[in-house]
Amino acid sequence: MRTIDWIDGAIELIDQTLLPHQVEVHRVTELPELIDDIKRLAVRGAPALGVAGALGVALIAASVQRSGGDEELDTVEVRRQAALLREARPTAVNLSWGVDRALTALDAGADAVLEEALRIRDEDIAACISMGLYGADLTRELTGKDRVRVMTICNTGSLATVERGTALGVIQTLLEQGSLEEAFPLETRPLLQGARLTAWELQRMDAPFRLLVDSAGPFLLSRGIADAVFIGADRIAANGDTANKVGSFSLALAAKHAGVPFIVVAPESTVDMSTASGADIEIEDRGVDEVAGFGGVRTAPEGIAAVNPAFDVTPNELITAIVTERRVILPGRGETLRDTPLGELRA
Amino acid sequence: MRTIDWIDGAIELIDQTLLPHQVEVHRVTELPELIDDIKRLAVRGAPALGVAGALGVALIAASVQRSGGDEELDTVEVRRQAALLREARPTAVNLSWGVDRALTALDAGADAVLEEALRIRDEDIAACISMGLYGADLTRELTGKDRVRVMTICNTGSLATVERGTALGVIQTLLEQGSLEEAFPLETRPLLQGARLTAWELQRMDAPFRLLVDSAGPFLLSRGIADAVFIGADRIAANGDTANKVGSFSLALAAKHAGVPFIVVAPESTVDMSTASGADIEIEDRGVDEVAGFGGVRTAPEGIAAVNPAFDVTPNELITAIVTERRVILPGRGETLRDTPLGELRA
Repeated sequence: MRTIDWIDGAIELIDQTLLPHQVEVHRVTELPELIDDIKRLAVRGAPALGVAGALGVALIAASVQRSGGDEELDTVEVRRQAALLREARPTAVNLSWGVDRALTALDAGADAVLEEALRIRDEDIAACISMGLYGADLTRELTGKDRVRVMTICNTGSLATVERGTALGVIQTLLEQGSLEEAFPLETRPLLQGARLTAWELQRMDAPFRLLVDSAGPFLLSRGIADAVFIGADRIAANGDTANKVGSFSLALAAKHAGVPFIVVAPESTVDMSTASGADIEIEDRGVDEVAGFGGVRTAPEGIAAVNPAFDVTPNELITAIVTERRVILPGRGETLRDTPLGELRA
Repeated sequence: MRTIDWIDGAIELIDQTLLPHQVEVHRVTELPELIDDIKRLAVRGAPALGVAGALGVALIAASVQRSGGDEELDTVEVRRQAALLREARPTAVNLSWGVDRALTALDAGADAVLEEALRIRDEDIAACISMGLYGADLTRELTGKDRVRVMTICNTGSLATVERGTALGVIQTLLEQGSLEEAFPLETRPLLQGARLTAWELQRMDAPFRLLVDSAGPFLLSRGIADAVFIGADRIAANGDTANKVGSFSLALAAKHAGVPFIVVAPESTVDMSTASGADIEIEDRGVDEVAGFGGVRTAPEGIAAVNPAFDVTPNELITAIVTERRVILPGRGETLRDTPLGELRA
């Protein structure tokens, strides 16, 4: 089951706001519906948003084509609507990236736009398969074990991508290869993507796992509960510093203290060589409401303030390995993003 | 306003399950009500439970005295009921301690039991005042600052004691002395004592503060948001290893990484010289329900498992100072609990 796809002339996506209690596929035929779905996080996760952006442009182009009848495609109108789509979540770089890449095919017509969007979808699936294979081999190598216990945070599974996932994709690959002893997902406050989405995905793939509150992760690592920690990434700076869901830094510090490998799993598109280091990444504050409540229930007193960083930054010296679909970089062994060449896509 | 007290022949306590949305004082005249209040966490926090145990024995003795008329107090019956009270929360050592200490006065009659219980209440208030003074001076000394920003976890305020608190008591003292720039309480999953109780107390004392999700604490320390971290303690082993709310370990690791003092604030009664180190402290698992949701809202899928340690253990090498009502111990300077003599109670 794909998180997002193009089916019979429209976008179909799993409405993630209803998970884990309801699995509902939303068929999107009009741009305003897609914008609404992106805004309310019915579709989320960097790679999935890239595909949503590209398929959204395909939807726009098909619609403009239909209303134009036999006339040539009105590319100005397509670009106007694409700009609205891009603004659905202005800080999501992958959304803009997907929109822009689909637009590169615009001069060749609506069908070409759709083809480009489907290519992005297929590349995402292939990249996740490759990351899973690289990551699973690396994990066995670094831990010296055939069966491993792993910890992870947030949702980096099929729900964040099209079909398999990044960090959770490695866990799925380990499971398929008979190498997963147990997974320990963190619930991931404030939005609980771990408890709601990752637990649901692990349950569906029939993986052995136990859920943790976020602050139990570092302590349980110190007590030897896991052999490795995997995280995804929002952005990887040129020096390897990695921006990811808040809580990643704390896990990295604890993994180092416990002597356990800490592995970042993300596609090459996440690597941003124009950002020198984590110090250059601005951290957005998402406001008080997410912190002051839990699952829609207000828990804190009214009238308080909060600090709510949308993500944190893990410095490269705490990262054992960065795994992409085309390479493995080991900062601890002096390897850098700049000097490590791209390798083959594995399948 | 006291969390728990003896008023006109009965126990009065703030029902903490209704906070922060409702402040309701529960008047307890019968033992079964008190047992129920303890079981459902209407009263909680180690020192407050000690006082609840002692006042509970006073309630029992007065009731047995009344039903016996002019006869001598039936101490067998008092002890039988006291055993029921002790079992309301068998793992809470302070509850047993309070019960047992009140029983030492039993042979002298019901009035003597009440006097002993009130002495425990008054000692708790005096100890918190003294910890606050020692802690505030130490914080200014260690940070070299007159105004400090501090981080804390769980609820260690008046709601965990009778009137002032331990770690939060130091924060209150800093506020009263004009030395508090800002406090950063962590929400403290799974039971959210930070969001519900500490935020409420800080608001009532008019302290400047901002709430954080637990996993943001370590990262924000690395970015210099606070000058010191304070925690309370469930138990302090002979070597200084400290059992406290899960999340404390993670903060300690991050404080060390950030070069910020990490300070344990707890009464002498928390020091357990019969426990050699943290390795000897058994960690109870509180089960899946607290992790899978909050306040009746289920967030994780049904049928999952969890690891839910009731507390964690911070090793002494991560602790800058231990502050009690009678001394300050600095493990980093080679000071030990065994060799540091008790000093004066400050007021």
